[in-house]
Amino acid sequence: MVDPSALDEETLTADTADEEVRPDDRIDDERHDEENRLKPQYVRGVRDALEAGDKGAVYDLVEPLHPADIADLIELFDSDERAQLAASITDLMTSDVVAELNDHVREVMMEALDPGAVATIAEQLETDDAVQLLEDLDEDDQKAIIAELEPETQAAVNSALAYPEETAGRLMNRHVMAVPEHLTVGDLIDYLREEGDLEHDFFEVFVIDASHHPVGTCSLNWILTTPRTVALTDVMKRDQTLIPVSMDQEEVALMFQKYALISAAVVDDSGRLVGQMTVDDIVHIISEEAGEDALLLSGAGDGDINEPIREAYSSRVRWLIANLGTAVVASAIIAFFGAAIEQLVALAVLMPIVASIGGNAGTQTMAVSVRAIATNQLTRTNTRKILWKELRVAVLNGATVAILIGIAAGLLYSPMMGAVIAAAMIINIAVAGLAGVLVPVIFERLNQDPAVASSVFVTMITDSMGFFAFLGLAVVSGLVGMG
Amino acid sequence: MVDPSALDEETLTADTADEEVRPDDRIDDERHDEENRLKPQYVRGVRDALEAGDKGAVYDLVEPLHPADIADLIELFDSDERAQLAASITDLMTSDVVAELNDHVREVMMEALDPGAVATIAEQLETDDAVQLLEDLDEDDQKAIIAELEPETQAAVNSALAYPEETAGRLMNRHVMAVPEHLTVGDLIDYLREEGDLEHDFFEVFVIDASHHPVGTCSLNWILTTPRTVALTDVMKRDQTLIPVSMDQEEVALMFQKYALISAAVVDDSGRLVGQMTVDDIVHIISEEAGEDALLLSGAGDGDINEPIREAYSSRVRWLIANLGTAVVASAIIAFFGAAIEQLVALAVLMPIVASIGGNAGTQTMAVSVRAIATNQLTRTNTRKILWKELRVAVLNGATVAILIGIAAGLLYSPMMGAVIAAAMIINIAVAGLAGVLVPVIFERLNQDPAVASSVFVTMITDSMGFFAFLGLAVVSGLVGMG
Repeated sequence: MVDPSALDEETLTADTADEEVRPDDRIDDERHDEENRLKPQYVRGVRDALEAGDKGAVYDLVEPLHPADIADLIELFDSDERAQLAASITDLMTSDVVAELNDHVREVMMEALDPGAVATIAEQLETDDAVQLLEDLDEDDQKAIIAELEPETQAAVNSALAYPEETAGRLMNRHVMAVPEHLTVGDLIDYLREEGDLEHDFFEVFVIDASHHPVGTCSLNWILTTPRTVALTDVMKRDQTLIPVSMDQEEVALMFQKYALISAAVVDDSGRLVGQMTVDDIVHIISEEAGEDALLLSGAGDGDINEPIREAYSSRVRWLIANLGTAVVASAIIAFFGAAIEQLVALAVLMPIVASIGGNAGTQTMAVSVRAIATNQLTRTNTRKILWKELRVAVLNGATVAILIGIAAGLLYSPMMGAVIAAAMIINIAVAGLAGVLVPVIFERLNQDPAVASSVFVTMITDSMGFFAFLGLAVVSGLVGMG
Repeated sequence: MVDPSALDEETLTADTADEEVRPDDRIDDERHDEENRLKPQYVRGVRDALEAGDKGAVYDLVEPLHPADIADLIELFDSDERAQLAASITDLMTSDVVAELNDHVREVMMEALDPGAVATIAEQLETDDAVQLLEDLDEDDQKAIIAELEPETQAAVNSALAYPEETAGRLMNRHVMAVPEHLTVGDLIDYLREEGDLEHDFFEVFVIDASHHPVGTCSLNWILTTPRTVALTDVMKRDQTLIPVSMDQEEVALMFQKYALISAAVVDDSGRLVGQMTVDDIVHIISEEAGEDALLLSGAGDGDINEPIREAYSSRVRWLIANLGTAVVASAIIAFFGAAIEQLVALAVLMPIVASIGGNAGTQTMAVSVRAIATNQLTRTNTRKILWKELRVAVLNGATVAILIGIAAGLLYSPMMGAVIAAAMIINIAVAGLAGVLVPVIFERLNQDPAVASSVFVTMITDSMGFFAFLGLAVVSGLVGMG
């Protein structure tokens, strides 16, 4: 049934060449430590060879590395050393290495090249990787490079760039294996042997109708385990997850996680198959989106260690200034009670404790809520239930901490002081628990990313409430007068 | 070449039955909102039917849902409603639903069932999912359930439980497609048609030698696009990423990300193939590990909204108590300067600002460093470089904030007060920048998770340094005396 002469020499050669860049078992080898990071001694060896100007030695050291490791190596070097390193290993600087580079590092390296050279690299990449390479560059650079591309790549890149950033349309791979519905399993295998290439990996075959609408999908293992005579329509799954081109990457990632997808068809507004998303791209998105929240919550913006100083400064200073505003509000509350503090300096000594623990309690609840919102676990349906639960946890926490600090302050100062700080602590931790849920939920309802600005508000609430409850109770309890 | 009589009726039936539980295009349907969450109206509908005791209506409402959505629905309900819901939809409560449930919710639901019933569910799951279901239960419950399992499942589960939690050995799937190396592509396809089943999805075929050591791997698409006569050894990749059984899940996830893997062979200490990890399990690990850091940094422990109150309380209160300790240290510094504050209450008003902004700056740097350590981007090789970079960012941030607060305090109080608070702010933000890198790096070097305890130390440093620098400078500058 299959003609041995169909054996395509070229395909097999390409395959063998490809073999060298596949990952091998690189745990505990002489270049990697037990956590698969490049060993400091190894990196030092490369750096020494580089400083000695021994390009041959540099090449020999780097040559056995996987492209992803070469990218890691480049990132570990200072910016001035990077160009020198790249120049020593030009033919190892494949498109795979470029695709694996950190965005910031890649941007700087690409800006140093002329548009023609970048276009040559982009040509070798899958469209989605080429788009990723181009989207970060200045618009002028981008245009100059796109002009140098082959017409086909140019069209694909322009079509991707027409979709907003971080949507399926921008991120999808335009290369899909799509076949008409009248085939049998045997027809399909013959077709794949004729038409398929080893360059593009694929995990499922999409079955489409005459108007290019997906009607079903076949995992490759179903095809391989089914007799040739079976009709494709009998083995395919008719129900499949379709990703609209306009879907945000975070939603796409959640769909992949929820339905354990390996790949999924992307459809345009009229439901036609236009591309696919594959899980290897999704893992990067999942990792980015999940890791992003920790950074956003702390006000560190993108928070990439490779971010240039100027960008790191501008993204972080705005949050420090916002926090300065909230600190001033809290400080105004202290000023209001200035006379009370003058009478009893102990108040100034103890008040930061109430504010600080409240802030911590608020941050705990906020982190849990933000994560739950991001993973679609906290929705309108259960907000009230979660709020009630968090309030109970907060009261338990508050009571525990209040007893400890109350006893200590009672012994050190006076029983009344102990009572005042204990009461203020419970109030502030309870308020912190409510704010930790409500602030992110309100941002979510206003269609704002709750991870971005919740921190500033929760901190303002817990700081202000901490000072107000403690100093206010000190006055109300008669511990001090208002002046 | 293929006998049509090989068409296996049963397999095809299983497949068709399976079809119903496949995800369909469920965006913008009547049950899901645009972010693929169950609509509040829909959930309310189910709840109303449940409260009315109308089991039939509940069943009809839930029946069209994907198992992952049924799991979501159960999670949205209160614990007492969950049992009632489960009882109304018994035959929709498939093992897939159980596998998709949140750990905490599943644990409670499983504890309510007798061991035999749990064993029946476990039998239907893939071994890795069965292990996940069992590992969270009490040891006694676990033993009782394992005793009820079929001998084969029992052996697989016991072997998995023998490996430490969160290692490849615990998490791997023991079902792999492994073939000897002398086959041709045609032989392999015939073998798969004979032996393969549609129940277990697989993405690559592992080629092994006589002693069960992996010698290469074949992606299914390479097999499908290669003529039958080609030897497997000519199409397979010889270099492949092998995962040692003892590897931690976080490292496994990083390997999958770094080398864009879909599945990978797991090997025991003597290098024999014992199982595989697949990317659909990895996406959960990536999401968990990346999201975990935000929660750990905030001291929220596991930080799952479904965590029972008692667990949430005990994991969070310990961090609040730790923070109470650090707040007391900071407060001792204030007490030391008590006489100065007595002379000038403005010091008490302004001092929390210095501590608070320093805390924020430290948290920003710490979040970036923890993320970089988790993704293997911050290693011994570049620590000094990053430290130097963060110090420069901190000085820029410090200078900006110092100018703002210095001018304000200068106008509101006195020029000297402006100078003192500005200087204290620069010092504290610079210290925060250094602490934000050094504290996580030191924890990492001591083989401790930097996300867990860094926060407490960074906050202690920035609080104490904030009060000390500000009050100390106020005294040194002659703004106030020491009493």
